[in-house]
Amino acid sequence: MEPFEVHILGCGSALPTTRHNASSQVIRIGNKQFMIDCGEGTQLQLRRGHVHFSFINHIFISHLHGDHCFGLIGLISTFALLGRTAPLHIYADGMLETLMKPHLDFFCKGMNYPIFFHGIDATKHNIIYEDNTITVETLPQKHRMPCCGFLFKEKPKKRHLIGDAVNYYNIPAYMRQAIKDGADFTTPDGEVIPNARLTREADPSRSYAYCSDTLPCPGNNKYIKGVDLLYHEATFAESEKGRAASTFHSTARQAAQIACDAEAKRLVIGHFSSRYDECDILQKEAKEIFENTLMADEGRIFTI
Amino acid sequence: MEPFEVHILGCGSALPTTRHNASSQVIRIGNKQFMIDCGEGTQLQLRRGHVHFSFINHIFISHLHGDHCFGLIGLISTFALLGRTAPLHIYADGMLETLMKPHLDFFCKGMNYPIFFHGIDATKHNIIYEDNTITVETLPQKHRMPCCGFLFKEKPKKRHLIGDAVNYYNIPAYMRQAIKDGADFTTPDGEVIPNARLTREADPSRSYAYCSDTLPCPGNNKYIKGVDLLYHEATFAESEKGRAASTFHSTARQAAQIACDAEAKRLVIGHFSSRYDECDILQKEAKEIFENTLMADEGRIFTI
Repeated sequence: MEPFEVHILGCGSALPTTRHNASSQVIRIGNKQFMIDCGEGTQLQLRRGHVHFSFINHIFISHLHGDHCFGLIGLISTFALLGRTAPLHIYADGMLETLMKPHLDFFCKGMNYPIFFHGIDATKHNIIYEDNTITVETLPQKHRMPCCGFLFKEKPKKRHLIGDAVNYYNIPAYMRQAIKDGADFTTPDGEVIPNARLTREADPSRSYAYCSDTLPCPGNNKYIKGVDLLYHEATFAESEKGRAASTFHSTARQAAQIACDAEAKRLVIGHFSSRYDECDILQKEAKEIFENTLMADEGRIFTI
Repeated sequence: MEPFEVHILGCGSALPTTRHNASSQVIRIGNKQFMIDCGEGTQLQLRRGHVHFSFINHIFISHLHGDHCFGLIGLISTFALLGRTAPLHIYADGMLETLMKPHLDFFCKGMNYPIFFHGIDATKHNIIYEDNTITVETLPQKHRMPCCGFLFKEKPKKRHLIGDAVNYYNIPAYMRQAIKDGADFTTPDGEVIPNARLTREADPSRSYAYCSDTLPCPGNNKYIKGVDLLYHEATFAESEKGRAASTFHSTARQAAQIACDAEAKRLVIGHFSSRYDECDILQKEAKEIFENTLMADEGRIFTI
């Protein structure tokens, strides 16, 4: 199967520490790379992670708190210095374009590539990106400002041709795509060979959901039901549940409950508060609810 | 003597690398801390260097290229998150305030401390900061946009009282400041004791000059003559002299020539181009002209 990976560049929260960078991650699906959030220092994390800058064409910003977007202007400048010509698409609250425009005009004058801002309505569940193999949907979050998560979903894939059958029936190349799509095959003698004898099951369509920053939003469970990998913020431990609620964040246990209720296959928790030197307590509390909990960490790559 | 230190936070140039961060440094004079330039990731470098955020009250920005100022908004936000109440003074081209104002209003709404922008005329040599012990002067640079260096100078210090003389003549406490300032002492019997017998030489007034980004500017030598420590950009090796000229930067050798002509005591070179994996060639070329050349590096502290 083609790669489907989530590469964590930063999984700290608002106060940067020497342990965790501000939020950012790269999603690699086939030969495409997408970025989610872009906190300060993201371009350095790309360097450290040996990520090819030029393959990033789409950046999704969950919300306009600094720890999720202050790295954009530096990244955009560096793209320009590296001679980029490919368009860059940024999906974010419309306010981002308003704020960035004067900075782009001043700091990035004479850039050789265009930037397209795509305004997101964070209150709605929408498909905001689509290509031949995947879709990206918004997941409305509950935060102190408009904020949305993102659901990356592979489209249904074609069935696999069974090599022996293709040879046996001598199926011409030009008919194979149709058969992968489910068509039967009629031999020159008029015999109809049912598709089930020519193909086997398509690879499953994989999915990844990113939910940060937010109070628990069980209303999104219907969209992320059975998701292969769920990244959910877990800023606080249960002892700080009140603080989580008042700042519109989740505890590790709440993140795990979402994973459990949404029947996620695996959960990655991140967006750790700077108060936790080690995040063991967060992992422990999440695992009590959802055993298959993993910890985000800078440089860690999760394969789906 | 009180400390006078230059703490390098970043000494790379426009393209960030895993070896060098964007430009920033902290100048520590007595119990005061000043920041020069604030590229992306500066607040993380402050963390790594265990620098007290709250002691930074004055930030000097040489010019408005991203690698010298993109870290400001993140630093300002973090100051706010840490509960800062002390005013912050930023000295920079007036355009910075225009550009930052909408970002401060949006990202730092409700901050508990004021920011004062002080517009700099980078074309002039001026005193732009003064307190009881130091002055900061601008040094006009030649770059692709208005840019200035900064000269930090201690004011002349008081002479030291000679303890034995103070005891012998039983000099009352209230007269000691005047004697430190150079006054003679008249005993109760009317005998005049010349100052030279009561005091010894004051500590020398130390100085530090920061010159980046710029073509060589020998016109500033009269201001920095005899400077204790000169930080001068040395973006390129001699083999890239043409490129240095066309991008308004200096070679290591040119930086060393300035140090030589200005009779600097020591030279620190920095702002290294990302093309140099190791900067040995830059050090070698500078040392051929000016032996007392040191290399900037992240985390390195130079004591004056």
